Amino acid sequence: VEKLVGEWKELGAEVFINVCTTEAFVPFESKEELIKAIEEDNKERLTATQVYVYAAAKYAKEAGGAAFVNAIPTLIANDPAFVELAKESNLVLFGDDGATGATPLTADILSHLAQRNRYVKDVAQFNIGGNNDFLALTDKERNKSKEFTKSSIVKDLLGYDAPHYIKPTGFLEPLGDKKFIAMHIEYVSFNGAVDELMIDGRINDSPALAGLLVDLARLGKIAIEKKEFGTVYPVNAFYMKNPGPKEMQNIPRIIAYEKMRMWAGLKPRWF
Amino acid sequence: VEKLVGEWKELGAEVFINVCTTEAFVPFESKEELIKAIEEDNKERLTATQVYVYAAAKYAKEAGGAAFVNAIPTLIANDPAFVELAKESNLVLFGDDGATGATPLTADILSHLAQRNRYVKDVAQFNIGGNNDFLALTDKERNKSKEFTKSSIVKDLLGYDAPHYIKPTGFLEPLGDKKFIAMHIEYVSFNGAVDELMIDGRINDSPALAGLLVDLARLGKIAIEKKEFGTVYPVNAFYMKNPGPKEMQNIPRIIAYEKMRMWAGLKPRWF
Amino acid sequence: VEKLVGEWKELGAEVFINVCTTEAFVPFESKEELIKAIEEDNKERLTATQVYVYAAAKYAKEAGGAAFVNAIPTLIANDPAFVELAKESNLVLFGDDGATGATPLTADILSHLAQRNRYVKDVAQFNIGGNNDFLALTDKERNKSKEFTKSSIVKDLLGYDAPHYIKPTGFLEPLGDKKFIAMHIEYVSFNGAVDELMIDGRINDSPALAGLLVDLARLGKIAIEKKEFGTVYPVNAFYMKNPGPKEMQNIPRIIAYEKMRMWAGLKPRWF
Amino acid sequence: VEKLVGEWKELGAEVFINVCTTEAFVPFESKEELIKAIEEDNKERLTATQVYVYAAAKYAKEAGGAAFVNAIPTLIANDPAFVELAKESNLVLFGDDGATGATPLTADILSHLAQRNRYVKDVAQFNIGGNNDFLALTDKERNKSKEFTKSSIVKDLLGYDAPHYIKPTGFLEPLGDKKFIAMHIEYVSFNGAVDELMIDGRINDSPALAGLLVDLARLGKIAIEKKEFGTVYPVNAFYMKNPGPKEMQNIPRIIAYEKMRMWAGLKPRWF
Repeated sequence: VEKLVGEWKELGAEVFINVCTTEAFVPFESKEELIKAIEEDNKERLTATQVYVYAAAKYAKEAGGAAFVNAIPTLIANDPAFVELAKESNLVLFGDDGATGATPLTADILSHLAQRNRYVKDVAQFNIGGNNDFLALTDKERNKSKEFTKSSIVKDLLGYDAPHYIKPTGFLEPLGDKKFIAMHIEYVSFNGAVDELMIDGRINDSPALAGLLVDLARLGKIAIEKKEFGTVYPVNAFYMKNPGPKEMQNIPRIIAYEKMRMWAGLKPRWF
Repeated sequence: VEKLVGEWKELGAEVFINVCTTEAFVPFESKEELIKAIEEDNKERLTATQVYVYAAAKYAKEAGGAAFVNAIPTLIANDPAFVELAKESNLVLFGDDGATGATPLTADILSHLAQRNRYVKDVAQFNIGGNNDFLALTDKERNKSKEFTKSSIVKDLLGYDAPHYIKPTGFLEPLGDKKFIAMHIEYVSFNGAVDELMIDGRINDSPALAGLLVDLARLGKIAIEKKEFGTVYPVNAFYMKNPGPKEMQNIPRIIAYEKMRMWAGLKPRWF
Repeated sequence: VEKLVGEWKELGAEVFINVCTTEAFVPFESKEELIKAIEEDNKERLTATQVYVYAAAKYAKEAGGAAFVNAIPTLIANDPAFVELAKESNLVLFGDDGATGATPLTADILSHLAQRNRYVKDVAQFNIGGNNDFLALTDKERNKSKEFTKSSIVKDLLGYDAPHYIKPTGFLEPLGDKKFIAMHIEYVSFNGAVDELMIDGRINDSPALAGLLVDLARLGKIAIEKKEFGTVYPVNAFYMKNPGPKEMQNIPRIIAYEKMRMWAGLKPRWF
Repeated sequence: VEKLVGEWKELGAEVFINVCTTEAFVPFESKEELIKAIEEDNKERLTATQVYVYAAAKYAKEAGGAAFVNAIPTLIANDPAFVELAKESNLVLFGDDGATGATPLTADILSHLAQRNRYVKDVAQFNIGGNNDFLALTDKERNKSKEFTKSSIVKDLLGYDAPHYIKPTGFLEPLGDKKFIAMHIEYVSFNGAVDELMIDGRINDSPALAGLLVDLARLGKIAIEKKEFGTVYPVNAFYMKNPGPKEMQNIPRIIAYEKMRMWAGLKPRWF
């Protein structure tokens, strides 16, 4: 940790972006436990991301401000232990889990149906890819953390927990950085009529995220300037699959976008 | 016209809903020309819908208030002649063309992409059905009026006119009231990477509209009570493919929904 | 076993159809081991299906002929132990695993591409349903037996083992007897050009099988009359996901259909 | 004509491949009328393709043998006038309309359903592209000739004329040489259960054809060697949308492939 902080000082780092591979982790919930684990150098308990955030907090305290963007599923902006630490340390936390690919699209389509009083019967969403992220997900433990991240959107957006199967499905090496997503939504429109949507996509995984990270780096600087330490829901709600803090829910991305613009001092585009 | 007005008086009608089959029409633009055509009983110039709205305005003036919901493509809420007439006559106009099926879904998906800075290369949207509405569209003239209604959403939502092919495509009798829609969207995500979405749906046409009409009837009563005569953009923006008045654009439906709720005195759901 | 044989004698049964839920099983390979397990009443080693086939063989020997249709993944027509037993016992065996839904369609589409010299880069096929069959597949052991059945088609039809992910993916209760299938095939056409197919289906699971079982019952009677005891490849190749005997491969269903017609004494339809 | 024949002689041409843009044409049916039009140099009556075939026949007669591959919709191998002329002139005719993209896939999928006794309720197939071929199809006359070519497969393969909408749908410039195809098939499986397939594809148009043309050039040489002048159904049935001669029908491509192999002296792959 000390070594990292030292290096960062030399570099004059401002915004840290965490895009390491999905980890198996357990949230801390309490700052005391987190600090205890760090002090004991408890390698069983801590993941790389958790250590990095701790180091970033330490750095931010000394440097007078920094931002950490957690683009992976490990709960950071949703872990009260880290949010508390960040507030005390001049650290901005954006997280958790960069919202690319199928999940935000599913979110907006479910909102679309909810607004028309469609009753969603069930949702199935598959995705398969060929990069390291998908390879890691074949590991049961890690897949579980991913699964946890995503399943709340259905309830958050529809207002009821429509039966759903939404999880990364497999690894297929020749797809490389592309992923194939398939979605099936069955819903009741009016008077019992049942409609169906089937949505397929072939999406380049890394560029989808990279575009968002460029935005998030800029927003990190804005947050430092505004001294909004801790975590920033209006940013997380648009960019993250699991927007922190813990007590906040998913909202339709299209609306989150306007909130994020307003937070950043921009005019809303349509509202 | 007199006869209609008389009948409506006996019934104490409040909200008129127009769902007749797509017509070939020409907007009036000026109230004087409209009245001239009515006085001359110019059957070449006037469509059934245009006559009905005129009668509804006459009725509303005498009854002290009424609402007319135009759920078909004939431009009414987008025709300044009718909006002016409605304002003077205590008539609420909702229109034009009830937004069911593929168009509002396309709208929300395009907004979704725009918000992530995806550059849309092209959009193809097909739809085919087996009811009278699709049969009528095989008639060139009528199809043209439909086509006109829909093509503005791409530019309104993306901010540039991405090449697109969006129109009712054919009639296939055994589909009956169901319609099949297919959509292909090709876009650039980041660093030149090209992604693709392919969306298919099988949708019951009439129930999709019926649910909206129930809402619109209630909103019509609210507008009469609020004495908002003329046309009401916050309602049209959510419910109509071509929201009047003429000078107003399409906005993402998910945002229009919140504006409509706020107009109706309800709390926004997510904003 | 004795009791079953007795009951069947009273009924004068001719064709047995096995549609029980997917089992965890191990093939026997040798007739001696099979008979030993039966004699020892080894309930750990034997599945319900394996016992039923043994009983059917016993019955067939006494009755002078019978047929057993194995519509589930347990290897019977692909287990040399059972094929040998059937030949000695006047039993016709059709199997294994009734080919409904996505697998035969995938088979024909892969054949279609192979015939045009398309080089298939990868195949992903998902399916999800809400009936007991899908529920059983959430059990790891059982899913494994299903997986084994299906994966050979890619190599059999393309001539090389294109990377693929083809397995039942999940259980979603409200789908009931319907299943949703999604398929993504990426292939090289000519001069390096890469094409993609995305195929979605919503299929009623039981009726798809029921139609085939009616055919198979009739074909069972034909086989008894022809005294073709053991297993019948021309029937299996069209109707079964894993056509027995063990040493035989999958061929395109469209061709298998003609072979099956010719075996049954019918004129080929197109050949 | 004389000039063309002269040039070809110098080149020692053997196989002609016609891939010009879709034309508006009328078949001749009688050789006399064809020759009359040529002699009168009737430019109103003759298309470029028709003149080329006439020239190729003339050349073949002098050279002792040649082949003409008609990869566009103009009826040549289906026009008895040209087939008669070809027979007398040592000319091999393959045609008409190279089967790439959606049509042969639809053919195999319909065969797949027919073999399982599925009753097809309706078929919708759309396709849109951005190359000159699609641009030409926006011309009403030319689109009509394309439409004529394709619609027979449904009846040929199913045995009844299931209602269908199968035609090139539009032009969308940024797609370039790619085309997007979408297909919806609704069918009854058993006991009234209705299933649906939705198939989307993004296909490179020219490479799909180019691969076939390489094959056809080789097959043309084989036919010349075998002295099979006139038209060759086993080749046409696999490679052409509208396989000549006129009186022959479409058969499933997967079976046509085996027939073609056998005609060419190769072992069938699966039969």
